[in-house]
Amino acid sequence: MKVKREQWETNFSEWFRNVISRSEYYDYRYPVKGTGVWRPLGMRLRRNILNIMRRLLEDTGHDEVLFPTLIPETLIRRESEHIKKFEEEIFWVTRGGKESLTSRLALRPTSETAIMEMFRLWIHAHTDLPVKIYQVVSVFRCETKATAPLIRVREISTFKEAHTAHKTREEAEQQVKDAIKIYKKFFDDLCIPYLISLRPEWDKFAGAVYTIAFDTILPDGKTLQIGTVHYLGTNFSQVFEVTYLTPEGKHEYVHTTSYGISERVVAAIISVHGDDHGIVLPPNVAPIQVVIIPIIYGDGEEILKACRDIYEKMKKKGYSVVLDDRSDITPGEKYYYWELRGVPLRIEVGPRDLKEDTVTIVKRDTLERTTIPKNEITVFIETEFENIKRRLKERAWKWFNSRVTRSRNISDATRLLDEKKGIVEVPWCGGKKCGLQIEERTNSNILGYDIDPNLSDATGEKCVNCGGEAKYWTRVSKRY
Amino acid sequence: MKVKREQWETNFSEWFRNVISRSEYYDYRYPVKGTGVWRPLGMRLRRNILNIMRRLLEDTGHDEVLFPTLIPETLIRRESEHIKKFEEEIFWVTRGGKESLTSRLALRPTSETAIMEMFRLWIHAHTDLPVKIYQVVSVFRCETKATAPLIRVREISTFKEAHTAHKTREEAEQQVKDAIKIYKKFFDDLCIPYLISLRPEWDKFAGAVYTIAFDTILPDGKTLQIGTVHYLGTNFSQVFEVTYLTPEGKHEYVHTTSYGISERVVAAIISVHGDDHGIVLPPNVAPIQVVIIPIIYGDGEEILKACRDIYEKMKKKGYSVVLDDRSDITPGEKYYYWELRGVPLRIEVGPRDLKEDTVTIVKRDTLERTTIPKNEITVFIETEFENIKRRLKERAWKWFNSRVTRSRNISDATRLLDEKKGIVEVPWCGGKKCGLQIEERTNSNILGYDIDPNLSDATGEKCVNCGGEAKYWTRVSKRY
Repeated sequence: MKVKREQWETNFSEWFRNVISRSEYYDYRYPVKGTGVWRPLGMRLRRNILNIMRRLLEDTGHDEVLFPTLIPETLIRRESEHIKKFEEEIFWVTRGGKESLTSRLALRPTSETAIMEMFRLWIHAHTDLPVKIYQVVSVFRCETKATAPLIRVREISTFKEAHTAHKTREEAEQQVKDAIKIYKKFFDDLCIPYLISLRPEWDKFAGAVYTIAFDTILPDGKTLQIGTVHYLGTNFSQVFEVTYLTPEGKHEYVHTTSYGISERVVAAIISVHGDDHGIVLPPNVAPIQVVIIPIIYGDGEEILKACRDIYEKMKKKGYSVVLDDRSDITPGEKYYYWELRGVPLRIEVGPRDLKEDTVTIVKRDTLERTTIPKNEITVFIETEFENIKRRLKERAWKWFNSRVTRSRNISDATRLLDEKKGIVEVPWCGGKKCGLQIEERTNSNILGYDIDPNLSDATGEKCVNCGGEAKYWTRVSKRY
Repeated sequence: MKVKREQWETNFSEWFRNVISRSEYYDYRYPVKGTGVWRPLGMRLRRNILNIMRRLLEDTGHDEVLFPTLIPETLIRRESEHIKKFEEEIFWVTRGGKESLTSRLALRPTSETAIMEMFRLWIHAHTDLPVKIYQVVSVFRCETKATAPLIRVREISTFKEAHTAHKTREEAEQQVKDAIKIYKKFFDDLCIPYLISLRPEWDKFAGAVYTIAFDTILPDGKTLQIGTVHYLGTNFSQVFEVTYLTPEGKHEYVHTTSYGISERVVAAIISVHGDDHGIVLPPNVAPIQVVIIPIIYGDGEEILKACRDIYEKMKKKGYSVVLDDRSDITPGEKYYYWELRGVPLRIEVGPRDLKEDTVTIVKRDTLERTTIPKNEITVFIETEFENIKRRLKERAWKWFNSRVTRSRNISDATRLLDEKKGIVEVPWCGGKKCGLQIEERTNSNILGYDIDPNLSDATGEKCVNCGGEAKYWTRVSKRY
């Protein structure tokens, strides 16, 4: 059986909404615009993904914390660039019970201001540094654009934000590099392809010195920002007066960074690996890794017993396994049901398997069917999980790379972007005016250029807008 | 060294605030009244406690989900008893950006209404039942009484709420019993003593048929409600029209339950086990289980090496261990530092230990010091962790039981309660009027009577208020 990806590619938005709801991963019918409910399977995928992130962060010295959801208006207004950007999007709590609150409270759109307020209380001397903390929380943005489940939401329910404070610019910038390494490992483990770009000045995080972002490409050719890393310099520490005493007895401002990911990672993993049958997932994060389906004609007690044995063996091995012994639906309906839900391996046991002491295994990613001796199951699964992960990664990167092109010409670039080609790199002089004109002329966005000069250097090229000397190959895309 | 609990008992409120902040578990200086920040150690305690709860719930068929924080006003108003009780406490979001919202959104005070709205979409036939879900979220209550960190807060940041739907009253009430079993195991594993009481009519959850609650006693003699289980009957399903098709083709309302715990569990575990040195914790949830302290005079390289060996061995065993090799503070200061933070076992290695191949171990709960051969460490720790848990449980229950008494006389009961004696059981006819008068005359609250008739039956006694025939020994306490 050949894997079909027609709906997936030609009608992605509908495919995506269909798949996440019919698979019972996520329900966006909840009656508040731009919010949704994580159902059990989606929640387990979310948890498996967050566990990878937690391990990466804690292995590199980050401690988990939890801050309040509400930020007083006076606090969030303190950093002027910050509030300017977020002001339009803040949900305000103005009443408690039947009373008006004396001062309004913001549902946090991000936590820098709340965290800096506490950093001031926690950080005194150089021995208190560095501080590296993270939390996984809901943040809220009153999006005025059209919302999309998991992608553009008003309650970001899976915001992992890390915040760090350091003695010097050098140390903080080293932390930015470390954060990028962490995120690379994270997305690599999820088999999600990405490019890393230094965002242009006009698109950096509100209050940052600079912002570096991870983008992937969804099947419709639009890019999705799936992670950001900000160097905040002393912009926040000056306003919040977060200083430390140096060994020489001087007071210096701390340098801070912040970096975050959200449920867009879940949207991305579902999007980049899926097909017309539904969800496809790397086995390391799949909520259910193996499903066992008895193929019964007449009395199936022996087959059921064989299935139960396999089930127990899988459970003992620590796999997340389901034995689907429902008797009111056919095996075919079960295939459909579990393919939609992205279970990496399906084990079928029928009369012939019983007789020949075999099982039939179907791989979700290729839908390929193999019969193997029953006593080889464990080794087969272990190996095949690695194979599936490798194949998904290869397929995703291959597709991704086919959607990244270079162009030296605005109308050519515009055509490629209109044809949903993903990311187009064009030579750019680096000037803001040219940047904004490129965005306007291509009716797209500048993502920025790669942080690796080997990849972004455009010496010898001419700016696609002004014709002057180009500095960078900058990336342009339609984006979410 | 004798364990002191003077401050703990005579000045509990100050002791508690002191201990949670100085130990760096929780910071209530965050500038929104009734909220606070979970710092790394507190967060790890919180996580360890939640992991126990998660395991208990998932082993009994509960699936984790995550609902949005916001509930539309129309939705939360639908069940009239429910809104009547919560109306005074709801935080309302009325503005998004610079615009007024067309309809107000409540920060959920609890999630029954949001969940029923989705149950209607998810539940169709008897084969869809039972549904058993839970989530761990923030809920918000604009408390007008004085707030207290972790105990009476405006953002309950650790609300574990389970919600279930069933075909019949019998099945739902069986679930109530199962939930009580789960909570018993949970509190037993945390060594927190409790009594289980059927709350009086006038104090049940808003919208419930009945409420059963777990109460513990804090060192100041006031009770703290640490868990509740509600049978909601069809009160919510009728209003939200959640029905299922029976095998006979009839539509019936589902019977629902809900049950919850909050960060009060963390407040309780810190409160019931603590002493004048600070936090004391059962080893199974302690954020740090073992601390190793080198006792160095002059060159300590050999001692440090021995400490590092022990550290590696403990880590390999899966313990949460810290080697405190700071050179700028004395061993004595380190003792104080880690005792405050509730580390169950401290291992000291000094010159004499090095010579004699021993280590010195100090138990946090008794502050008792033992010297053992170095090669016996692992077995010692494993055994002693069990011993500490047993001792903490015994001490906590002994103290708790000494604070539960019976009285047949209002003025006697009032005196006991004024003397901070905890819970007083008095015979009660079961009438609401008498109940309210008992509350007024003792200036305390009725907690209700035990769900076990063997414990609550008061046949032959006279109601402490009206002198009529008593039915139950009902519990009275000052409470948080």
